[in-house]
Amino acid sequence: MTTSDARPDRAVSLPRRERRRFLVGGLGLAGAAASLPLATQAAAPPGAAEHPVAADPSKVPGYPLADESYGARSQFETEVRRRYNTATPLSSWTFTPLQDSMGIVTPSGLFFERSHAGTAVIDPGKHMLFVHGLVARPRKYMVRDLKRFPAISRLLFLECSGNGLTGWSKPTMPTVQGTHGLTSTAEWTGVPLATILNEVGVRSNAKWLLAEGNDGAAMTRSIPIEKAMKDCILAYGQNGEALRPEQGYPLRLLVPGFEGNMNIKWLRRLEISDAPFMTREETSKYTDIRPDGKAVQFSLEMEAKSVITSPSGGMQLERPGFHEITGLAWSGRGTIRRVDVSVDGGSTWREAALQQPVLPICHTRFRMPWQWDGKGTAILQSRALDDTGYVQPTLGQVIAVRGLNGPLGSIYHLNAIQSWQVAGDGKVSNVHHY
Amino acid sequence: MTTSDARPDRAVSLPRRERRRFLVGGLGLAGAAASLPLATQAAAPPGAAEHPVAADPSKVPGYPLADESYGARSQFETEVRRRYNTATPLSSWTFTPLQDSMGIVTPSGLFFERSHAGTAVIDPGKHMLFVHGLVARPRKYMVRDLKRFPAISRLLFLECSGNGLTGWSKPTMPTVQGTHGLTSTAEWTGVPLATILNEVGVRSNAKWLLAEGNDGAAMTRSIPIEKAMKDCILAYGQNGEALRPEQGYPLRLLVPGFEGNMNIKWLRRLEISDAPFMTREETSKYTDIRPDGKAVQFSLEMEAKSVITSPSGGMQLERPGFHEITGLAWSGRGTIRRVDVSVDGGSTWREAALQQPVLPICHTRFRMPWQWDGKGTAILQSRALDDTGYVQPTLGQVIAVRGLNGPLGSIYHLNAIQSWQVAGDGKVSNVHHY
Repeated sequence: MTTSDARPDRAVSLPRRERRRFLVGGLGLAGAAASLPLATQAAAPPGAAEHPVAADPSKVPGYPLADESYGARSQFETEVRRRYNTATPLSSWTFTPLQDSMGIVTPSGLFFERSHAGTAVIDPGKHMLFVHGLVARPRKYMVRDLKRFPAISRLLFLECSGNGLTGWSKPTMPTVQGTHGLTSTAEWTGVPLATILNEVGVRSNAKWLLAEGNDGAAMTRSIPIEKAMKDCILAYGQNGEALRPEQGYPLRLLVPGFEGNMNIKWLRRLEISDAPFMTREETSKYTDIRPDGKAVQFSLEMEAKSVITSPSGGMQLERPGFHEITGLAWSGRGTIRRVDVSVDGGSTWREAALQQPVLPICHTRFRMPWQWDGKGTAILQSRALDDTGYVQPTLGQVIAVRGLNGPLGSIYHLNAIQSWQVAGDGKVSNVHHY
Repeated sequence: MTTSDARPDRAVSLPRRERRRFLVGGLGLAGAAASLPLATQAAAPPGAAEHPVAADPSKVPGYPLADESYGARSQFETEVRRRYNTATPLSSWTFTPLQDSMGIVTPSGLFFERSHAGTAVIDPGKHMLFVHGLVARPRKYMVRDLKRFPAISRLLFLECSGNGLTGWSKPTMPTVQGTHGLTSTAEWTGVPLATILNEVGVRSNAKWLLAEGNDGAAMTRSIPIEKAMKDCILAYGQNGEALRPEQGYPLRLLVPGFEGNMNIKWLRRLEISDAPFMTREETSKYTDIRPDGKAVQFSLEMEAKSVITSPSGGMQLERPGFHEITGLAWSGRGTIRRVDVSVDGGSTWREAALQQPVLPICHTRFRMPWQWDGKGTAILQSRALDDTGYVQPTLGQVIAVRGLNGPLGSIYHLNAIQSWQVAGDGKVSNVHHY
């Protein structure tokens, strides 16, 4: 066994050969994996341990609890994975499988990834954060120094501003993992950035702050000082434990509600200034190209958005009758106040139930009962409204304003209403419906 | 590499011999592990992948994103583990490391475990739930049938009623992991039990419901039918993904606020009756022995409780000055309304700040700033109050009512105020302070 738990199967131990047969047969890998050594096979299902299944589990002991353990998920759940990284794995994405999402918390193992030079490996005992520029007392902090300040925890979504970029011109991606999987929610813990800015004494002419990562891309973004003082967090915790490596271990910035890449990972430097820094990621990239060819910079807040996660593209409804429609809504500007759902492509709308807790700048789960008659096609849509009064627009409305400026459309900040078509045979697919 | 991710280290690849040296040296395992094969070493740190650390992480690419992945935690965090299982690993506990907890969500890999015959391994495609007894229409449900009903998600704590059983007579366990680590919080998803009971048509003379697990212990408990109809959940989800195996995959019962073992894992059968079933776990075990030798049965709700998780036993305060006192409070009867903190053994109390969200039957994070003067000893205590008006009692108050009836005390349902002593040298230890 080569799981990360190193749980010995003392209770129901099979000979090595038997175990291998179980692994190969049970996971349907007979053809592909039969010639591989055992260790490689065992490593195949991401995030799972392998254990033999008894005909009647109540007639045999289970596997024993390990002395010092960190749990893994079930061997039957390994198809639930992050997917769709690009051909350049060092500057890439992996997407959260929203079709399998439940509730509002994203498990850290499935939290979407976006990095520009892979995942940096950083020793937390050596990592430092430098704070300098327009400050009275420039300082450096070890991670353990930051942990001595009063902490804060918040459930917050993060969304890459490129989420949905394949959906401008045509419905490219078949599943909600591909259309919307660059958003996830976690409970983050850290120090309010304002605490540290007050420690170093920000000068009165400060207007912007540069945040820089310690990864191979040295990711840098400019953040308005008002936002930094308002609610940003120097985070070292995610879902009750340390940040995951791909989320910036041991330290990242959280800029609640602002586009994902401003939430700098592997954070090593904050420089306070009187002007934005015009980094690559806010000039060449992450700008919104207008129909006249000019680009809008610093569209930082993620507007209200929602998506039905079930039924969603690639699913197959087994039979007519009751189906629960459920999905997620979120807004970078505040709290979701209402989600409307349509099953007829937007002709009529009904208000969905919002699952508690409904928190600001956090995924909100909505649900609506639906009787599917199995006749003709149904077009399922959801529409979010936030507490600023903003209503999630249709794709036609977004394109009328933003245009389709490039082979993929206008790339960033697509928050249009998503349409899923349920065909008469129950097949669900991604469609554009104006 | 034999991690569950199977992430190839293409970016910074070292020869096999070098990698091994890194693993052995970097993790301080040189003596113990030098003679073990590589696979065994890699499996040693629970829940982590291993990657080489560059002198300057921003001068090298990180490790690439995997095509289909499920993330693991940092190799530097492996000392954060569940611990303290007993000498009988098939009927055992492992405890959540509350000293490292942040926020309110417990990561599923660190959620406490209690099982009576190890962790059952169950194929979700074959598992069935039988519902019978005093019902109009006995039925069986596959897990996929249950997933078609309207779902609910709730953040709920679970606590073993044996949590703290080593603390009655003397302060046995040195750390908060040992004193309080049998409680954890997750966001659970499933079907309201009332939905299924309405489907099968519970008869009017029904009073109790038996829940039975499909593990080797065939764990069984009786649950009042009013509670079953009120808020119980047939749960298949935990923290946004499938239940973890040790939490009852693929199906468990949640009985919000009631003692842990009633939340039957690997749930296979519900039998409705007009009387409790008097199972082993509610007659021989999980009863409260009184001073007169008789036992109180069915003390089901977990009373309000709290504990300071930092500073806590086994920690060492580095120096006098500012320290944040933080901890968790919870009540099986409702919502935490207030937590008071004392630094002088209960002579004076101050109200702590409650971190949002504050949810019913859920861990609530509290925080209080503290200036430690470094002189003499300080006794840190926290005291929870819930929305029924109940106030967490002192150890003396609990013992006055319950007595010390056995070598360990009265075993179950100890919810007394916990005392941590901070010595003049900053060493924190578990003490009894009346």
